[in-house]
Amino acid sequence: MHKIQVNVGASVTEANKRQAEENREHLEEHGIKAIDILGAVGSGKTMLVEKLTPVLRNRGFKVGAIVGDCYGDDDYQRIHALNIPTENLNTGTECHLDAHMVHHALHHLPLDDIDLLLIENVGNMVCPTDFPVGSHKRVVIVSVTEGDDVVNKHPAMFRECQIGIINKVDLAGAVGASIERMEKDMKRHNSNIQILKTNLKTGAGVEELADLITK
Amino acid sequence: MHKIQVNVGASVTEANKRQAEENREHLEEHGIKAIDILGAVGSGKTMLVEKLTPVLRNRGFKVGAIVGDCYGDDDYQRIHALNIPTENLNTGTECHLDAHMVHHALHHLPLDDIDLLLIENVGNMVCPTDFPVGSHKRVVIVSVTEGDDVVNKHPAMFRECQIGIINKVDLAGAVGASIERMEKDMKRHNSNIQILKTNLKTGAGVEELADLITK
Ligand SMILES: Nc1nc2c(ncn2[C@@H]2O[C@H](COP(=O)(O)OP(=O)(O)OP(=O)(O)O)[C@@H](O)[C@H]2O)c(=O)[nH]1
Ligand SMILES: Nc1nc2c(ncn2[C@@H]2O[C@H](COP(=O)(O)OP(=O)(O)OP(=O)(O)O)[C@@H](O)[C@H]2O)c(=O)[nH]1
Ligand SMILES: [Mg+2]
Ligand SMILES: [Mg+2]
Ligand SMILES: [Zn+2]
Ligand SMILES: [Zn+2]
Repeated sequence: MHKIQVNVGASVTEANKRQAEENREHLEEHGIKAIDILGAVGSGKTMLVEKLTPVLRNRGFKVGAIVGDCYGDDDYQRIHALNIPTENLNTGTECHLDAHMVHHALHHLPLDDIDLLLIENVGNMVCPTDFPVGSHKRVVIVSVTEGDDVVNKHPAMFRECQIGIINKVDLAGAVGASIERMEKDMKRHNSNIQILKTNLKTGAGVEELADLITK
Repeated sequence: MHKIQVNVGASVTEANKRQAEENREHLEEHGIKAIDILGAVGSGKTMLVEKLTPVLRNRGFKVGAIVGDCYGDDDYQRIHALNIPTENLNTGTECHLDAHMVHHALHHLPLDDIDLLLIENVGNMVCPTDFPVGSHKRVVIVSVTEGDDVVNKHPAMFRECQIGIINKVDLAGAVGASIERMEKDMKRHNSNIQILKTNLKTGAGVEELADLITK
């Protein structure tokens, strides 16, 4: 959001909130629980969907996905290869998904074949926080390679999310990041946030995440 | 920028462009060359300033810096420790620096003691492209840990910048990234872009960057 547009901005976020509520109702009519996955560029959002999907499938859930990116179909191809219903949303010059884009994607998905909908937002630690899309839970994933100050710098993001994931723990030594600092900063921004550490290359932490999002 | 605000948005970016031109004149009156450093969260922008500053100082340049972050003074403290004039800009809920913020920072810097001004933008691969701040060159730094599709996904960013840096080359194997793909995508988005590969932990590539920005 851009400060100088504050009045218009307020009505835009209000309109988005109403559309997000409609999306939520639409999802619930079809018995779908939706999870919005937020995080910086390259934090591991797509790999999270890749690793989580087989675990959820093993537990009997029918998974679907919406994939947001400014441009291209890199992520769409990866998720589509999992053999789940997938919609690609290219945002162009926009830096986040909004509820209206997600509304359109819902019209293209076979909603009665989905129990759990994973929504990968655009890589961005700021703007998506102001634009809920109708999900039941918001998950933020950061990676240690972003530096251990990444949590401190983005209070609004951690206040907005119910689950916070610290990923690429295998690379903490290589960049010199303190995972302890990241955990402390998460708790300070949001004392209720549920924290998980993952190495998505090996899948470590994914079963625990499946527990949190399905309960 | 948010699609629904396209008319307001146009006047906002126009106003920003005018302020950027004023900043540029202001800088040139004081004989300052300014470099805007763009890139995703944690790509290595601050470490670039940390490594570049002593190299530029050895070459006889007086360096100054403006540091943009949503919140906090993590980066400011690191740059300030280099003993150069430094201004911290906290953008709050904004996802990028704009020319007006930089204008204010210029009023707080000792402009006659600066030849080269390094402006670290907020970590974001989308919005800063639409908001020039008056710099003479725009440099984008991505890291291989963001995934080798990061360049393909952000065409506007690479079109906007004159120099493209691929950082953390030491970690390409650990994440499975193809540096070749990243280079090819940069050239495809912008055939004139000058490409450098760096390992900022060791400083590899920094002398070459100093050559490019000072010539
Ligand atoms: N070593 C290591 N690499 C990882 C881990 N998680 C993800 N990666 C790598 O990090 C890069 C980015 O992962 P993605 O899943 O594409 O990240 P993303 O958040 O979807 O990226 P965008 O959609 O572009 O914002 C890829 O090269 C992954 O292989 C991890 O835990 N450890
Ligand atoms: N291994 C390795 N680590 C690096 C390299 N460059 C930067 N890092 C590490 O990456 C992390 C992020 O670096 P920063 O310089 O803080 O990145 P930034 O772009 O300023 O981050 P923000 O301002 O938060 O967007 C830090 O832990 C650095 O030590 C590199 O070339 N190799
Ligand atoms: Mg992705
Ligand atoms: Mg920084
Ligand atoms: Zn935005
Ligand atoms: Zn923006």
